[in-house]
Amino acid sequence: MSDIHAYIDAHLGRFREELFEFLRIPSISARREYAPEVRRAAAWLAGKLKEAGLDVAIEETPGHPVVLGEWRGAGPGAPTVLIYGHYDVQPPEPLELWTTPPFEPSLRDGRIYARGAVDDKGQLYLHVKALEAHLRTAGRLPVNVVVLAEGEEEVGSDHLMPFVEKNAARLAADAVVISDTVMVAPGMPTIGASLRGLAYFQIEVQGPSHDLHSGSYGGAVVNPATALARILASFHDEDWRVAIPGFYDDVRSAPEYREQIRAVPFEEEAFRSETGAPALVGEAGFSTLERLWVRPTCEVNGLLSGYTGEGAKTVLPARAMAKVSCRLVPDQDPERIAEAFRRHVERVAPEGVTVSVEYLHGGRPWRARLEGPLYEAAARALERAFGRRPVYAGEGGSIPIVPELERVLGAPVLLMGFGLPGENAHAPDEWMSLENFEKGTHAAAALLSELGR
Amino acid sequence: MSDIHAYIDAHLGRFREELFEFLRIPSISARREYAPEVRRAAAWLAGKLKEAGLDVAIEETPGHPVVLGEWRGAGPGAPTVLIYGHYDVQPPEPLELWTTPPFEPSLRDGRIYARGAVDDKGQLYLHVKALEAHLRTAGRLPVNVVVLAEGEEEVGSDHLMPFVEKNAARLAADAVVISDTVMVAPGMPTIGASLRGLAYFQIEVQGPSHDLHSGSYGGAVVNPATALARILASFHDEDWRVAIPGFYDDVRSAPEYREQIRAVPFEEEAFRSETGAPALVGEAGFSTLERLWVRPTCEVNGLLSGYTGEGAKTVLPARAMAKVSCRLVPDQDPERIAEAFRRHVERVAPEGVTVSVEYLHGGRPWRARLEGPLYEAAARALERAFGRRPVYAGEGGSIPIVPELERVLGAPVLLMGFGLPGENAHAPDEWMSLENFEKGTHAAAALLSELGR
Repeated sequence: MSDIHAYIDAHLGRFREELFEFLRIPSISARREYAPEVRRAAAWLAGKLKEAGLDVAIEETPGHPVVLGEWRGAGPGAPTVLIYGHYDVQPPEPLELWTTPPFEPSLRDGRIYARGAVDDKGQLYLHVKALEAHLRTAGRLPVNVVVLAEGEEEVGSDHLMPFVEKNAARLAADAVVISDTVMVAPGMPTIGASLRGLAYFQIEVQGPSHDLHSGSYGGAVVNPATALARILASFHDEDWRVAIPGFYDDVRSAPEYREQIRAVPFEEEAFRSETGAPALVGEAGFSTLERLWVRPTCEVNGLLSGYTGEGAKTVLPARAMAKVSCRLVPDQDPERIAEAFRRHVERVAPEGVTVSVEYLHGGRPWRARLEGPLYEAAARALERAFGRRPVYAGEGGSIPIVPELERVLGAPVLLMGFGLPGENAHAPDEWMSLENFEKGTHAAAALLSELGR
Repeated sequence: MSDIHAYIDAHLGRFREELFEFLRIPSISARREYAPEVRRAAAWLAGKLKEAGLDVAIEETPGHPVVLGEWRGAGPGAPTVLIYGHYDVQPPEPLELWTTPPFEPSLRDGRIYARGAVDDKGQLYLHVKALEAHLRTAGRLPVNVVVLAEGEEEVGSDHLMPFVEKNAARLAADAVVISDTVMVAPGMPTIGASLRGLAYFQIEVQGPSHDLHSGSYGGAVVNPATALARILASFHDEDWRVAIPGFYDDVRSAPEYREQIRAVPFEEEAFRSETGAPALVGEAGFSTLERLWVRPTCEVNGLLSGYTGEGAKTVLPARAMAKVSCRLVPDQDPERIAEAFRRHVERVAPEGVTVSVEYLHGGRPWRARLEGPLYEAAARALERAFGRRPVYAGEGGSIPIVPELERVLGAPVLLMGFGLPGENAHAPDEWMSLENFEKGTHAAAALLSELGR
């Protein structure tokens, strides 16, 4: 095993240069005109997997292709690990806010700056290099490995799960490893313990059939913007608890997880300052991290009605619209929440307007079991690479494919991320810590060893 | 007096053709490039007043000019009547919705279709023709007359009141007559009994300093759109009564006026259908006309926050904005209401956001005294022209210059309008009833006779 890590240390310079090559390909999945670049990134990655010693296929989907690498040499008795990542990136705009061009990787102050550096090319490629290190030194991997890299993560992963379901037998695994999340702080290895789910709605309130003069008609008909405000105000009580009947019915109390959260180092004031909000305020009875990781929310994402330009216009609007989404925690079910949401809106909608609720989309929440051989192996591998035991951190956002992969493959997912707070994923000047790229490669290699014991 | 009315009947065809000439001038005050046309309309009107026999001046202002016609031949012992109107018009867009072009007047089914037909060229010009009828038949007017026609009514009358204040002595009058409102129904002469005032606000709620990811941050900071919804929802109680403390303090109970309103013919279902709203709903304990004419309101005119495009975006918005305006009734004062409004918003604003209220502008409410020689003369003149006594109707909208003219000139204002419901003022296919143009000319002539008795 020390050979493997010596190999990694000896080749870190080349690994980084290869990553830079990967980062130079503008594989922007959202832009039709970049489709050839997305395909070029798939081909480049397939080539590197092949060079490392895996069997490789570029699998077509109705969208961008899936890159599949396989190594089955550990035999049917050994466990199989599926490593998931994505080789597509977000659009880089606004370009003028980048210090150096997004597709010309630049190393400054120990950070690799480029679009896709941390999300997710750097975090995917460190696994490829860990595989290479094992295969070049030991001539084999400690476990069977499947690498599954998609090119549509930044546009909703529409074709991934259909592909996985269709190829479930081929993709069968005992564990799924994903590096696409953040560590809570530099030097503090982190295992992702939970993700929130989502139920996203659009509410439309129709009052008059057309905009009216607010003088000539105001007072005689219900103003749809006022009606909408009443509906939105009804979503929370005075303690910022969601007041939709039935909303908390399926929320699992999580005493052990809340215990673990208290162990996570967290600076309230630094976090508040990062948001720029005057104060951190949320559901009574919970800490900030609990509000983000174990409590569901109901948030307005957008509002539109009437006249929104400069100055005054005395219009009584015909309609008002809100986009509202609920973040969900285990065991809330998006469909059941959608039902409760719709019933609540219908109940509180005032007479004199017509209200409709459209359920745009949803995703399930997820919580790691945080026990068993996979999590024990990960803790040891991270300790080897970073010199300390990992912490377990939640994520307030949603990664819908995580619960989906668990469901279809029947294997636990491990979120072992090497990003850092402030890394600017999806924003200008995205970066990945070079140290994390290097230690992440060691951790990924150690994880394979641990799983093969 | 019968000579005068015979003269009018004999010349109605010419009066209409002259009005068509007036309507062909696109005197759009809101468009800088139409300034020469606005001036051409002023000159045209001045010419017609001169032909009728008045002394005429085109008075410059920092904006479009004021046309002033004067006839002082009744002598210092006789009363002076000031007739106010405006020769500018609204922009005609959207052009594609006009059946015939806006500046090519067209007579169809007894209606004169053109931009400005009823607002206000037709209603102003009928007074000019009434003056002509008196002067051509009797060689004199029964009273002293001042005609004051402005070219900025459709852009806020910014320079009118400064002009009036500066020329208060010259404009001194015993009565002010304005024809720029509607009759409640065809054949039903109507005297305007009230106007609502206005206090217009913009509310800004700032949460985080920048848009945040609603997953990563949702639950930990107050959502400014939700905070705004709470503020807006706090403006009314369950009975749609305005719940701002102090809001009704200065509202004058108007038992006699409410009595008169009950005499106004009003078809609820026709009105509801005109709005297209599912139902007429408003402040408990008041009829629809009372809600429009004697009760103040608090209406949302515009709402904007976060993502308002198609589909879903999981943004926690940095800010939310609402435009809100209160319609006021006597003796509410816009400045006092602004103070109460601001205090209320500050009181209900939740912790965790920064809220600001900007008072954009205001105007005073007005109620006619509905007694004395002016109103008695108007009732007789309208009965002569239309064959029945007038009804007294309120107007839910605001005409800020009405209370201002009363204040500066110290004379009562008479709102004697000849528009009709559905006349499309400010909209495509604006029209004025030809019959009302003709009967209005008789009524205007009769009013001068009655005031000169």
